[in-house]
Amino acid sequence: MAKNSALIEPRLPRGFIDSEPADLAAIEQMVAKIRHVYERYGFDPIQTPFFEYTEALGKFLPDTDRPNAGVFSVQDDDEQWMSLRYDLTAPLARYFAQNYQDLPKPFRSYRQGWVFRNEKPGPGRFRQFMQFDADTVGAGGPESDAEMCMMMADTMDALGLAGKYVVRVNNRKVLDGVMQAIGVVDEAQKLTILRAIDKLDKFGPEGVRLLLGKGRKDESGDFTEGAGLGGDQINALLLLFGSSDDNSEMVITQGNDLSSFSLQERSRDEIDSEGIPSHYQKLADRVGEQAALRLGFIKAVFLMLGKNLDTNPTAYAGYDELYQMAQLFASAGYGPDRIKIDPSVVRGLEYYTGPVFEIELTFTVQNEKGQDVVFGSVGGGGRYDGLVSRFRNEHTPATGFSIGVSRLASALKLTGNLDATPVTGPVVVTVMEKDRIADYQKMVADLRAAGIRAELFLGSSKNMGKQMKYADKRNAPAVIIQGSDEREQGVVQIKDLAEGAEAAASITDNAAWKTERPGQYSVPLSEMVEFVKQIPAVAAWMKANG
Amino acid sequence: MAKNSALIEPRLPRGFIDSEPADLAAIEQMVAKIRHVYERYGFDPIQTPFFEYTEALGKFLPDTDRPNAGVFSVQDDDEQWMSLRYDLTAPLARYFAQNYQDLPKPFRSYRQGWVFRNEKPGPGRFRQFMQFDADTVGAGGPESDAEMCMMMADTMDALGLAGKYVVRVNNRKVLDGVMQAIGVVDEAQKLTILRAIDKLDKFGPEGVRLLLGKGRKDESGDFTEGAGLGGDQINALLLLFGSSDDNSEMVITQGNDLSSFSLQERSRDEIDSEGIPSHYQKLADRVGEQAALRLGFIKAVFLMLGKNLDTNPTAYAGYDELYQMAQLFASAGYGPDRIKIDPSVVRGLEYYTGPVFEIELTFTVQNEKGQDVVFGSVGGGGRYDGLVSRFRNEHTPATGFSIGVSRLASALKLTGNLDATPVTGPVVVTVMEKDRIADYQKMVADLRAAGIRAELFLGSSKNMGKQMKYADKRNAPAVIIQGSDEREQGVVQIKDLAEGAEAAASITDNAAWKTERPGQYSVPLSEMVEFVKQIPAVAAWMKANG
Repeated sequence: MAKNSALIEPRLPRGFIDSEPADLAAIEQMVAKIRHVYERYGFDPIQTPFFEYTEALGKFLPDTDRPNAGVFSVQDDDEQWMSLRYDLTAPLARYFAQNYQDLPKPFRSYRQGWVFRNEKPGPGRFRQFMQFDADTVGAGGPESDAEMCMMMADTMDALGLAGKYVVRVNNRKVLDGVMQAIGVVDEAQKLTILRAIDKLDKFGPEGVRLLLGKGRKDESGDFTEGAGLGGDQINALLLLFGSSDDNSEMVITQGNDLSSFSLQERSRDEIDSEGIPSHYQKLADRVGEQAALRLGFIKAVFLMLGKNLDTNPTAYAGYDELYQMAQLFASAGYGPDRIKIDPSVVRGLEYYTGPVFEIELTFTVQNEKGQDVVFGSVGGGGRYDGLVSRFRNEHTPATGFSIGVSRLASALKLTGNLDATPVTGPVVVTVMEKDRIADYQKMVADLRAAGIRAELFLGSSKNMGKQMKYADKRNAPAVIIQGSDEREQGVVQIKDLAEGAEAAASITDNAAWKTERPGQYSVPLSEMVEFVKQIPAVAAWMKANG
Repeated sequence: MAKNSALIEPRLPRGFIDSEPADLAAIEQMVAKIRHVYERYGFDPIQTPFFEYTEALGKFLPDTDRPNAGVFSVQDDDEQWMSLRYDLTAPLARYFAQNYQDLPKPFRSYRQGWVFRNEKPGPGRFRQFMQFDADTVGAGGPESDAEMCMMMADTMDALGLAGKYVVRVNNRKVLDGVMQAIGVVDEAQKLTILRAIDKLDKFGPEGVRLLLGKGRKDESGDFTEGAGLGGDQINALLLLFGSSDDNSEMVITQGNDLSSFSLQERSRDEIDSEGIPSHYQKLADRVGEQAALRLGFIKAVFLMLGKNLDTNPTAYAGYDELYQMAQLFASAGYGPDRIKIDPSVVRGLEYYTGPVFEIELTFTVQNEKGQDVVFGSVGGGGRYDGLVSRFRNEHTPATGFSIGVSRLASALKLTGNLDATPVTGPVVVTVMEKDRIADYQKMVADLRAAGIRAELFLGSSKNMGKQMKYADKRNAPAVIIQGSDEREQGVVQIKDLAEGAEAAASITDNAAWKTERPGQYSVPLSEMVEFVKQIPAVAAWMKANG
């Protein structure tokens, strides 16, 4: 055939992908388990559309003629800009405000859906991806945040990841308070600090120490300007972000030794004049060793700066919320192997106002360079008390979290917690005599009526080899054949393909094969349906798809 | 609080809507049934992304700077236009062409997903809506089209609509052939004719006769230019489009009386010199009365024009495909109460090339004016042999259909085939003593661990009335209460809200109410979980969400 120059190349825009049946089945299986947990927690599904007014999304307000930076936007015929949602939280805030009168308050909802980013795509970075969120709007207490963390942990357990994850919990007020305490108010400097901290894995504490101080020269001689902090400030930050069990002795014996405890905590504990280590033990009895230690870190950071935590209202509030959450985790039986307080967690700073949390998968995988690395985050969230008040003239607390669906699915494939067996195909009724399509179609209709997955071979070539190859490619459990001989005898040939394949692996003698014809049966037409039902792969499909 | 002038109004762009839990549950229930049928037919799911290159979508190729007419389009940073898909067929054609090497052929797939139209929204007309499609690509025979029709019929049965639908089948080659036969080649004139035909319900045959001829003046005196057809041409079209049982006698005795049968049909029937009515009977024996009659209409139309069907290759091919499909329906046992041949079906003329079909729901509903009207189409499709060849330099036949998900769901609500009962809410554990949140949270954790849907009341006000109102709004099956009295006794109060509401309807005596406290139980804390499990609404939820 002559080449048609007007042919369009079949391809997708960069950053978008198709999904195959096995992917979809895996995602569906996973999502069903997640939903089951969310629903048990009292959350109900809602769905918002893909488009919102750009101004309602908030983050990317248009400051140019076409606000397409970061989001996909189009101008409506009334000149208003609308954008494809970039997450599921901004639309929830709009939804809650719009339906305020009718909704139960607090309002618990979960939302599963595609979101869009108009960004440069890369490996594993798509411009359309699925999130699965749960949020409680209108509840301000740390018990709502604690519930989110417990739900995340229960979700991981339900997915079969017990022992392979940890939910890490922090409070962004702690970091805000520390920044105040070291005298950082400038947003640009804050960003330089966070960027430096982010390099801990890459450069180690000494490299980061330089980046937090005067600056760092790399091997090529390039100099990166530092954040300009002094020694105590740097030590304090490294303690906060490098917090690990290695520091525990210092915290318990030295850090807490210098501390005076906050008034609220005193009254709560009814401690009058106990020594620090014994107070630590009291705290540990209530929230567990791990949380007590991490709460101790926060105090120690302030002590290093020559200050007391309870003189910094922002950090103190963060500390207190963490303390209350830790108590709830302990009393509901969620140990630090599942949920732990971790002052080093930094997450999406845009709209979080209090507790922040992150689900980390703790098993290692090989990265592109063949190095073992921790799988890492598959989701997270936090409290965002400011989002709804952009629409409603009153304080509306809210908390929630988001799971990255594809990333979690990849993790589950790695751990063997997603059934990756190919989808069972249909029983294929082959076409042997072209003028008898109606008869073959009738066989298919009979099989289907009995609940069996079945189809007629619809290709134009009725070559037997092609039909068998097709059945194989479809992962068909069986093939039905009726040529003129079988028609005259009133029978059909039924090939059990799995049985045939198994036998093929053990029989090496070609003559024996032809005599035995393993997996092949001649069955009266009237008994075809009952016979096919007994084939193991068919029976399994019918059971699963009752 | 002072009015904040910077408040954003919470609202959605026109033509977009949110979905509530009950809607989503209904759609999910419906979709599960549809999928079950499609999978039994051997179809597997695939999913394509929302964006495609605009040129790949085909229909709306950009002829302006911003191709936003009809579709939503954005320009990528490499200047290429991409658009949100407006249906699920164009993306399938791209997918098949792109993955040609790896796919089984014929390729059966189903796709459920949102599509977008950048059009003026109206009542029931949205700019984002869900379609559910099934297609077979690479199969050219009428048996593939027949299978689509049977699958549509089986889907309607599975949804509980037996007796309330009919799948109407036509072939667009028939209409093309009739247009040729009446000498219409101009696309504009064709459109005028189709628009006139479309007014049959509104103006009746006499009004349409004027519109097909010289033109029609309405009551206000406005004149609509006609299509300029002559009497025989108009009669032929009215017979084709007005085809109903009323004309049957004419077709059998007069129409067919003039006919000579096509050569292929003759040889197939091995009829030599039989009279027409006896041939009709032979045909009816093979395809059923209804189909024989409708096939007769097609012949009669040509006879009216003084021609024979078999001298018009286009119409004859359409007739022959309809004949073969009718045979398959008859042999597989799909009677005209489920699938019928109907030469009056006109459907999406853009890309259909052969058989076209439509699912019509036949029960009546009241329209906005209070008139009884047939519910009408909930989906349809047909053969589109040209779509894939835009990407691949070879003929690639394809057939499929699409269901409008929301429209079908509305229909099922009307017929009572969708469970519209509100979602069962969680058991609500109330907060009576504010400093005992951890204890209440523990109760919730215990209930959840036993598989019970449960939650802690998270609102800031712990007023008992508010908590009960909340439970009511959530459709909670039960409420757990533990104040200081209950705490001291080691018990909880459990209110079975359904039992309470039922009793409230029968007890009118306030004093009796207070004594009996129907639906309210005092239970030891250690027995709480077992007791709650026995509450009928809780047990029902647990059974459904196993």
